[in-house]
Amino acid sequence: MSIQGGCWQSLLRVNLTDRSVRKEKIEDDVLRKYVGGALLADKLLYDELSPGIDPLGPENKLVFFAGPLTGTRAICASRMGVATKSPLTGTICNSFSGGYLPVELKYAGYDMVVIEGASDEPVYLSIKDDKVSIRSAEKLWGINALDTQIYLKEELNDQSCRIACIGPAGENISLISSIINEQRAMGRKGVGAVMGSKKLKAIAIRGTQTVPVANPEMLQAGVAEFTKALKDSPFAYPVFSHVGSSSAVDAAQAVGVFPSRNYTDTGCQDYSSIGPEALAEYKVRRNNCYGCPLGCSQVRMAKTGRYAGIATEGPEYETLYSFGSMLGIKNPEFIFAMDRLCDELGIDSISAGVTISMAMELYEKGLLPGTEGLDLTWGNEDTIARLVRMMAYKEGLGEMMSDGTRIFAKKLGNGAEKYAMHVKGLELPAYDPRGLKAHGLNFATSYNGADHNRGYAFQEVFGMPFPYPVERLAIKGKGILAKFNQDFCGTYDVATLCEFPTQLAMPHNAQEVVAMQLTGATGMEFTKDDVWALGERLNNLNRMFNVREGFSRKDDTLPERFLKEELKDGLSKGELITEADLNAMLDEYYEVRGWDANGIPREDKLKELGLI
Amino acid sequence: MSIQGGCWQSLLRVNLTDRSVRKEKIEDDVLRKYVGGALLADKLLYDELSPGIDPLGPENKLVFFAGPLTGTRAICASRMGVATKSPLTGTICNSFSGGYLPVELKYAGYDMVVIEGASDEPVYLSIKDDKVSIRSAEKLWGINALDTQIYLKEELNDQSCRIACIGPAGENISLISSIINEQRAMGRKGVGAVMGSKKLKAIAIRGTQTVPVANPEMLQAGVAEFTKALKDSPFAYPVFSHVGSSSAVDAAQAVGVFPSRNYTDTGCQDYSSIGPEALAEYKVRRNNCYGCPLGCSQVRMAKTGRYAGIATEGPEYETLYSFGSMLGIKNPEFIFAMDRLCDELGIDSISAGVTISMAMELYEKGLLPGTEGLDLTWGNEDTIARLVRMMAYKEGLGEMMSDGTRIFAKKLGNGAEKYAMHVKGLELPAYDPRGLKAHGLNFATSYNGADHNRGYAFQEVFGMPFPYPVERLAIKGKGILAKFNQDFCGTYDVATLCEFPTQLAMPHNAQEVVAMQLTGATGMEFTKDDVWALGERLNNLNRMFNVREGFSRKDDTLPERFLKEELKDGLSKGELITEADLNAMLDEYYEVRGWDANGIPREDKLKELGLI
Repeated sequence: MSIQGGCWQSLLRVNLTDRSVRKEKIEDDVLRKYVGGALLADKLLYDELSPGIDPLGPENKLVFFAGPLTGTRAICASRMGVATKSPLTGTICNSFSGGYLPVELKYAGYDMVVIEGASDEPVYLSIKDDKVSIRSAEKLWGINALDTQIYLKEELNDQSCRIACIGPAGENISLISSIINEQRAMGRKGVGAVMGSKKLKAIAIRGTQTVPVANPEMLQAGVAEFTKALKDSPFAYPVFSHVGSSSAVDAAQAVGVFPSRNYTDTGCQDYSSIGPEALAEYKVRRNNCYGCPLGCSQVRMAKTGRYAGIATEGPEYETLYSFGSMLGIKNPEFIFAMDRLCDELGIDSISAGVTISMAMELYEKGLLPGTEGLDLTWGNEDTIARLVRMMAYKEGLGEMMSDGTRIFAKKLGNGAEKYAMHVKGLELPAYDPRGLKAHGLNFATSYNGADHNRGYAFQEVFGMPFPYPVERLAIKGKGILAKFNQDFCGTYDVATLCEFPTQLAMPHNAQEVVAMQLTGATGMEFTKDDVWALGERLNNLNRMFNVREGFSRKDDTLPERFLKEELKDGLSKGELITEADLNAMLDEYYEVRGWDANGIPREDKLKELGLI
Repeated sequence: MSIQGGCWQSLLRVNLTDRSVRKEKIEDDVLRKYVGGALLADKLLYDELSPGIDPLGPENKLVFFAGPLTGTRAICASRMGVATKSPLTGTICNSFSGGYLPVELKYAGYDMVVIEGASDEPVYLSIKDDKVSIRSAEKLWGINALDTQIYLKEELNDQSCRIACIGPAGENISLISSIINEQRAMGRKGVGAVMGSKKLKAIAIRGTQTVPVANPEMLQAGVAEFTKALKDSPFAYPVFSHVGSSSAVDAAQAVGVFPSRNYTDTGCQDYSSIGPEALAEYKVRRNNCYGCPLGCSQVRMAKTGRYAGIATEGPEYETLYSFGSMLGIKNPEFIFAMDRLCDELGIDSISAGVTISMAMELYEKGLLPGTEGLDLTWGNEDTIARLVRMMAYKEGLGEMMSDGTRIFAKKLGNGAEKYAMHVKGLELPAYDPRGLKAHGLNFATSYNGADHNRGYAFQEVFGMPFPYPVERLAIKGKGILAKFNQDFCGTYDVATLCEFPTQLAMPHNAQEVVAMQLTGATGMEFTKDDVWALGERLNNLNRMFNVREGFSRKDDTLPERFLKEELKDGLSKGELITEADLNAMLDEYYEVRGWDANGIPREDKLKELGLI
């Protein structure tokens, strides 16, 4: 049976060194096993990237991908991913955003665009169906990531194309720079620096075709299930559609895990001024992604004072942490301004804020030599705003900080690593692992470094009893739970569906529903177990990639602070994850994963998954 | 002969009070006499606005108009005008911008959109050919004028429409607020406040039709003449296309008329750091208007330091004055930031800067009570940036300043009018009239108040010997010259062509070339004299409007400073315009205009022009 009648499209390979462009068919057997999304993209990188390559060299590749459901009538499927070897972590990495861009990619006839080589001069890539060209971006270089989209549309005389691009941070090869599309970010792991190293300023995509679907009735049946789950969910419309991801501030505050001041006083502060109720007052509108009935993305605007009129699509929960609680900031309007600024500069708002938080703690402790007259007291808005720009432009102290906490510590060289809150170089997201053990274990073991979306412990954060009720603070069972969550997240990374509705509305049946949709869209039969296997395959394939790069158990750890300093207050008071706790969880995790004691996948597991 | 076969289209009348929408034919005899552009729009206002109405009341009307050449193959014809009774000056007023919006209006089938009445709730107007609707703008209210365009395109699911809108300043009825389309401004005379008073946040226009042309060969012959003139001009491509209007900084500095620090030290300072040569270093790209081969509009970007990455379409010459020399600012990157901020807030950059300049002089002289901790020393960037926001949001001192210099002086009430640099309430543009007498006389007599584009003295500023060589500092002959220039500017305001190429490339033959184009486009015969008559008709019609509002000779004056304080240095050192000078120029001007000694148009002149 040929499977090319379904939703799958072609692969576009663009080499910036020799300026060649090639449209390729993806082989049936590859599609059958790797299906789509992150799994298909990561498989390509696994096969095509030699071990040990420089992530910023022309031999690295940058893969933009949509998923098998994107551009069909599936809902919540407009996800754009980017895969590459991360210059921040040295691991393989995937970073995602939403909006309209991924649909254009599919409408143009592609599942993936593989960027190879590097240009000497700034260029952008224009994709209009089969018309693909590499053009000079000399007149866009330096322009911020929001304006770039405006000017490039003018240049192309095409207001309807959608664009992904880097800002100054990516151009300046900051290792915490992002790729921006619309007002959304493929934010983490330095993907912007990879794009910058290739001198690729932007990709503009416009598609005019439709995505064929093998069995529309089956797809529609899956979509109906998803739609019903959203309607039935106590989170989806009542909370998420209303206040978006800011809702997590309340959830995290409630259990004492909303990190504050570089994790020195998590649980001790009241951050309700930047919580969902407070933020609702600033909401101007929703900006739904294509085909999303929820629209969790909120445009908020400062109303008065110094930041009056500054609007941003956000801030998401993570930025309320990184530019809020982590910096001792309780003024939401300032966070709006920083959220917007990070998008303009194309810098990851999580990593940027966490790195500033580290600098502020060092300053407080007298460990920061040379602040160039800046007062880095917690909560100093002017200093924070100044530092963000200095990081994007690598000026003075900003140069030291522009590659995240790990390299900042290395450059300081005075034992500052103790204050660098990262795993494998990736700054921690907004969950104090001391109060969320499975989430912590996920940070330690995720193929991306400390990534909340690749193994989100929704049982611990929101108390959702799926697949069974979970004791938040227990150690035992968390290896099993972390595997469950990571493989669950693989479901939406392969599909590619949005994590929020998939996890929040279908914690009990996502795999069944996705199986129906994949079957309908592709024409290939999927069961719930097949979908689970996709998630497991993704986590094992990427582990193999990382093992090949030298990663092993020694790297599956957490910042020292979590192992030694107890949480001081709140519902998780007294908690930490001791070295023994971590080892116990790792042992259980490796065991259930079918990996050896050093965290290397065993042959039988790889065979079972068809990876060897 | 019917004249409806040519380029003329319909009038769209939208009443926001009763929400009615009506497409009207413009009568042949009206078109024959008033032709198009500002003249056609102002005639409508003259007929339909009762004398003495409140410019901010529902009885005022706001007319958006394109011209007879817009949307045809004519070049430099994509001009959008807006006409209304100005709340800043109390006169009739016209304000213009370029871009792509006016072409969409014509493609949608309209020459003009007349906005009447007022809405209770925020609304926007969507025009897509014959589909016209008034919709809630609740979710756009408060959003800045650049973001509004992004969000409204999403809301309409139409990336290709073009939008004019107001920012916070217009919403808050600042009398110096502007209407923004793309990154361009219909900036002056408080047109944004009129739109705000009607609670009209935006107009989105998309047209899919073509503009019929009566005689394409004749039009093309005119266009060829224009094209040739541009090629032959020593200004057009070599200077204007290269550095845009910033070129005027050198010209004005050279003859000592580039105003500095609220006109207290014009000619004494070196502002080459914000001149064309310096600015060329910051140029990123051109943003041509539709159908313009020159592209004077430059996108410039700050490269380093506090404003790094802030890009703006501009600043034009006027903003280099109002946020540069007028405030003692020599840092171009700060001006970029302010230019952008003014567009976002929807506030006129000329009037805003001049009003801050007045505040700074008052502060220096100890005449500013209550500065709320702000240090208004010349050149204080932080204070300036803060004040712009405070003006747009009417906060504290900003509330006092938000309606321009005249009302600021009135609110202060301590003789501050002496430092208020306006005519009829409109802040002066960037030419010190003491060194440019005809330009000064134009400021005194223009129907708009101190408007540089309604009677630009290119002979005095650039030394161009048309229609004959002119002595810059002479008084005699300047009445004749001011009339010549005002009627000349009427040519492009009626046509509607862009002022820059029309005046700079065709100072000797614009009327001939425009006559060919109008004949070709409309199918009605125009001679050079007919075109001159259009300009004269415009100036007389609008004078009648203002006379009906109570304006006369007493209002045709200049700020006291120019009558009493000599220029201290530079090529115009020692110059002023004494009361006797002004009276002599006015006498000559009224005489050549055919107006009586009080500045009232005589019956025979009005008859000659067919206005009575």
